Amino acid sequence: MRFDVLTLFPEMIESHCSYSILKRAVENSVIEVNTINPRDFTLDKHRKVDDTPYGGGAGMVLMPQPYVDAYESVEKMPNSVTIMLSPQGEPLCEKIVKDLAGYEQIICLCGHYEGFDERIREIIKPREISLGDFVLTGGELPALCLIDAVSRKLEGTLGKIESAEDDSFSDGLLEYPQYTKPREFRGLKVPEVLLNGNHKEINEFRYQQRLLRTKARRPDLLE
Amino acid sequence: MRFDVLTLFPEMIESHCSYSILKRAVENSVIEVNTINPRDFTLDKHRKVDDTPYGGGAGMVLMPQPYVDAYESVEKMPNSVTIMLSPQGEPLCEKIVKDLAGYEQIICLCGHYEGFDERIREIIKPREISLGDFVLTGGELPALCLIDAVSRKLEGTLGKIESAEDDSFSDGLLEYPQYTKPREFRGLKVPEVLLNGNHKEINEFRYQQRLLRTKARRPDLLE
Repeated sequence: MRFDVLTLFPEMIESHCSYSILKRAVENSVIEVNTINPRDFTLDKHRKVDDTPYGGGAGMVLMPQPYVDAYESVEKMPNSVTIMLSPQGEPLCEKIVKDLAGYEQIICLCGHYEGFDERIREIIKPREISLGDFVLTGGELPALCLIDAVSRKLEGTLGKIESAEDDSFSDGLLEYPQYTKPREFRGLKVPEVLLNGNHKEINEFRYQQRLLRTKARRPDLLE
Repeated sequence: MRFDVLTLFPEMIESHCSYSILKRAVENSVIEVNTINPRDFTLDKHRKVDDTPYGGGAGMVLMPQPYVDAYESVEKMPNSVTIMLSPQGEPLCEKIVKDLAGYEQIICLCGHYEGFDERIREIIKPREISLGDFVLTGGELPALCLIDAVSRKLEGTLGKIESAEDDSFSDGLLEYPQYTKPREFRGLKVPEVLLNGNHKEINEFRYQQRLLRTKARRPDLLE
């Protein structure tokens, strides 16, 4: 899977991809992460990428020329999707993550500051994805979340030691409570059922816990 | 505002805070971001922080001792809140962001790999917040999103050039389309109304655009 990320802050993307599981996914050639900086495509001698909005208002707006030219410079693979990270998009969810994991190339468009000139949307026609109903300074953190979530679905990213199967949302329920050593910590004990080796009972206990937890915390997921 | 972030990957937090608006917020002493690594609190000579789950299953679980001891080492300010970043929490939204901006200290608990030993929850009793219904490798990206979103609400983070007022969700609607220079790009023109200087008409146009966009993309927000 190749990720091409358009961003004014390529170091934000690159530095994060040098840790933990993304680092390993890059090293194992499961993913490749490239960055493209629209600032390198300005025709302006001051390398300006944004300007004040027509009609007034606070903030700066990303100008169409550097951004569209940067986008057009990216080599498109046959099975490619372009995602604009924007609070105006569909909220990211596990279903979208699984869908995106089926592409061979994801081009991520990150804004920064106030937003994109509308003509960037009109020309590129990206799919728009939001991280949720809150506002961030730029699309870099959402792009990193998308890269992380999608990479976890690709064969070779998670080792034997990790697993995506028991994760929350993998089948619409939250995860069951987990326990590890020691058996007792500050008077709190690991539930007996997890120690008895009866896998039927353990599975039943965990399933009940997932139902209870989902009902208590996220009844909307059960509907 | 002070952020204390418990994480096995302190560099992920520190490197991101050295860019853009978070960098400026740190430099202007609007926020302070500290990291605490539970690995520094292990009593084990191999500095082990996780182990296999009781009852079986894939993945590693964060052991309670290093994590709880690390948490207890953090000096608590009087107006402090502790947040566990977890897919099992309440989904982050603008309302929660505004609420969190009222604290003087936010302690973020980041997991990694499979999750927390349940006794960490039982002892610390954190508020749990999720970024959305998808699974990430760790709590570091969600913690950074929270730090970014909350910091934007604090006086002194955004300069005159930026603004949080017109952002999506600031009043429950998505943002209006933005336009900047040039007036015409590849045959696409800036709407006339934004060029005529009539602020009543501009405001009416923008409000209608926000309604239309919200209705088309996120009708759930209008309910």
